[in-house]
Amino acid sequence: MKKTIKKNKDQMINKISPLAPKVFRSMRPMQGVSIYTYCANLYNYNRLDVLLFLFEDELNIAEVFTRSKTRSITLDWNEKNLKKGKIKALLINSGNANTFTGKQGKDALDNLTQFIKKKFHIDLNKIFIASTGVIGEPFPYEKIIGSMSHHSEKNKSNWLNAARAIMTTDTFPKLKEANTLIDGKKVIIKGIAKGSGMIAPNMATMLGFIFTDANITRPVLQALLKEINEDSFNSITVDSDESTNDTVMLISTNYVKHKIIKTKNDKRLKNFKTQLKIVMLNLAEQIVKDGEGASKLIEVKVIGANNTKSAKVIARSIAESPLVKTAIYGEDPNWGRIIMAIGKSKETININKLKIKLGAKLVASQGMRNIKYKESDLKKYMKSNRINIEVDLGIGNSEAKMMTCDYSYDYIRINASYKS
Amino acid sequence: MKKTIKKNKDQMINKISPLAPKVFRSMRPMQGVSIYTYCANLYNYNRLDVLLFLFEDELNIAEVFTRSKTRSITLDWNEKNLKKGKIKALLINSGNANTFTGKQGKDALDNLTQFIKKKFHIDLNKIFIASTGVIGEPFPYEKIIGSMSHHSEKNKSNWLNAARAIMTTDTFPKLKEANTLIDGKKVIIKGIAKGSGMIAPNMATMLGFIFTDANITRPVLQALLKEINEDSFNSITVDSDESTNDTVMLISTNYVKHKIIKTKNDKRLKNFKTQLKIVMLNLAEQIVKDGEGASKLIEVKVIGANNTKSAKVIARSIAESPLVKTAIYGEDPNWGRIIMAIGKSKETININKLKIKLGAKLVASQGMRNIKYKESDLKKYMKSNRINIEVDLGIGNSEAKMMTCDYSYDYIRINASYKS
Repeated sequence: MKKTIKKNKDQMINKISPLAPKVFRSMRPMQGVSIYTYCANLYNYNRLDVLLFLFEDELNIAEVFTRSKTRSITLDWNEKNLKKGKIKALLINSGNANTFTGKQGKDALDNLTQFIKKKFHIDLNKIFIASTGVIGEPFPYEKIIGSMSHHSEKNKSNWLNAARAIMTTDTFPKLKEANTLIDGKKVIIKGIAKGSGMIAPNMATMLGFIFTDANITRPVLQALLKEINEDSFNSITVDSDESTNDTVMLISTNYVKHKIIKTKNDKRLKNFKTQLKIVMLNLAEQIVKDGEGASKLIEVKVIGANNTKSAKVIARSIAESPLVKTAIYGEDPNWGRIIMAIGKSKETININKLKIKLGAKLVASQGMRNIKYKESDLKKYMKSNRINIEVDLGIGNSEAKMMTCDYSYDYIRINASYKS
Repeated sequence: MKKTIKKNKDQMINKISPLAPKVFRSMRPMQGVSIYTYCANLYNYNRLDVLLFLFEDELNIAEVFTRSKTRSITLDWNEKNLKKGKIKALLINSGNANTFTGKQGKDALDNLTQFIKKKFHIDLNKIFIASTGVIGEPFPYEKIIGSMSHHSEKNKSNWLNAARAIMTTDTFPKLKEANTLIDGKKVIIKGIAKGSGMIAPNMATMLGFIFTDANITRPVLQALLKEINEDSFNSITVDSDESTNDTVMLISTNYVKHKIIKTKNDKRLKNFKTQLKIVMLNLAEQIVKDGEGASKLIEVKVIGANNTKSAKVIARSIAESPLVKTAIYGEDPNWGRIIMAIGKSKETININKLKIKLGAKLVASQGMRNIKYKESDLKKYMKSNRINIEVDLGIGNSEAKMMTCDYSYDYIRINASYKS
């Protein structure tokens, strides 16, 4: 069995998503942030699978968690430490999720955090952990500890390696940075993330780690993360399955010496929020582009809704519909399936006010197919690798967006290619 | 484009589901129920696509509807007539759903019902209609009326043809009958249904038509239908997409002269309910067996829940998870994905009390993998064409079941095989 896994993993790594960036660039170092990566052989072959961030000072951390009721104990650990909200070390491993691992998983986590405490002289309540990989297998903490025994202080700012170490089924590393000014002083935002696709026996997870040097209090960081997460990582879907280990962190070094920002409504946050959203949305979009078997990126925008929640429920219903996703893979402008997905959301609508656009083309309005629309009008558009669906409910002023990808043969191949 | 559709349809019809029955038998005639089928050429080739039931007397009818907010106007029509609950004619067509067809669809429905009224001398409020097929295309009522102009009184009890005429993407006709005794008198139950898979440009629908000669009042029929529908047609899922045209009807001739049953709690209903459930569950199961690309039937049973609703939400979450369904297609006992699906349902659980069985094998308990379980134990079981998943939540006495099928390459092929 092990051999089969290995073979499949290698195949996967070789086959990079057609929607991947053409070049991968690392990012510049960040003051006070040291990056170490290791190979703990968690995949039984030579790849980076452990990532350790060490911070020169105690930093402020904000974190949001999966709502799954079978979540990893690593998230329980973090939630406890989040009460104080100070971080000095962040350890992330791929290859094993430490989920549904019972007492062994708990003991393994304790051993791992004790090791970090002793080796790097860090209080347990300032250590944060994220794991991603197979569920229910004993957590291989000895291998992880073993890999860190080769710890070296060299080359401690390789963001590209950091993004690589947290990959599971991802076919490419995901990084993004941006900067802006606060009180005329330059502040930077850097992030890495990993994907939401899932594969046997490794269940992947959406992980996002965002760093900034802006001088912002912890409660404000948490508020920003919650708000922008909703419009970025919470607005993507690959297969409607939600992982047990999903988490996003926002960590601030507070190194830039502008006057500290203490409230969410501080006007100086305006450009910072814009740039933070650009980073988080870009990482979220990279995750979708790396959705298992993805060949097209799909943006579903619902406007004219009674309220944002309703807009999002409808957008999600369309973005998660297997029939919509297979139609788009088939380059078929099958808008009837969009009608179906709107209807099955159970949200209140007015059929006669509904308008549906595929790209710039109005396909449905006034309770029926747009009389000027011919399927051949969309033949060329459906071949593009980014498809925009816009639904105008025509009953209000609220809107929401969801990003997703199409469902292809490769989705099935990847997720079933495990015949034993 | 038309030619492509035709070719794909033919391919489909040739490829009968591997889970289909080996032989198709018609059913015996039913007193007072006449069955007529026609070819209105709605698929542009020679197949039955219109089905008309005419009843000698006014019969009692009960009906349940899709909760979709973009449902077909045929369902609005029926809901209006259902207030009186008397039926003399039931017309069903495949090929066009009469959904999102605006004024044309409304006028078409009026023309069609007027035609039936005149030709067969039936009041408009005793005519019921069901349509299934493409959404948003003008409703071809002239073709349907045209086909009925060749009406012949010959051969008016062919249930197999009835089941065939309502097929869209179905690869086999679905029929089931049963009988029981009420007050020592034999009563019969017969049903036909069509499938829940969906395909461009024909959006399929779950339709079920159940007939009995038991002497039961209309309110009791409606109560029975609602209750048993919940445990049969509402307990199956193919791809989580809900159609705009789903409906199930229960029609009684009241011909058997046992003392009339006027209350839902009448003890004489016990065996009747059992048999009605057998018929409806069997038809529902046939629909799942004919799910697009299905190669395995999957039964998800959740027991030990706090309440039935919670059990059903969890069962549905597992049954609709693309990752669970692709794993089973891959014959991979990937129970970690079941854990994930339980977690993402957001229902309250106690991880330490959770037990998961695949077939007879306990794979997870006490918050971790069952220590006695080896993946190789399930190698043979996963190859069978019926997979049972049992989740014991261990926190209550309620339970629920969902039937579904696996996700295969063929699901994608069928639903995307429309490259234009």
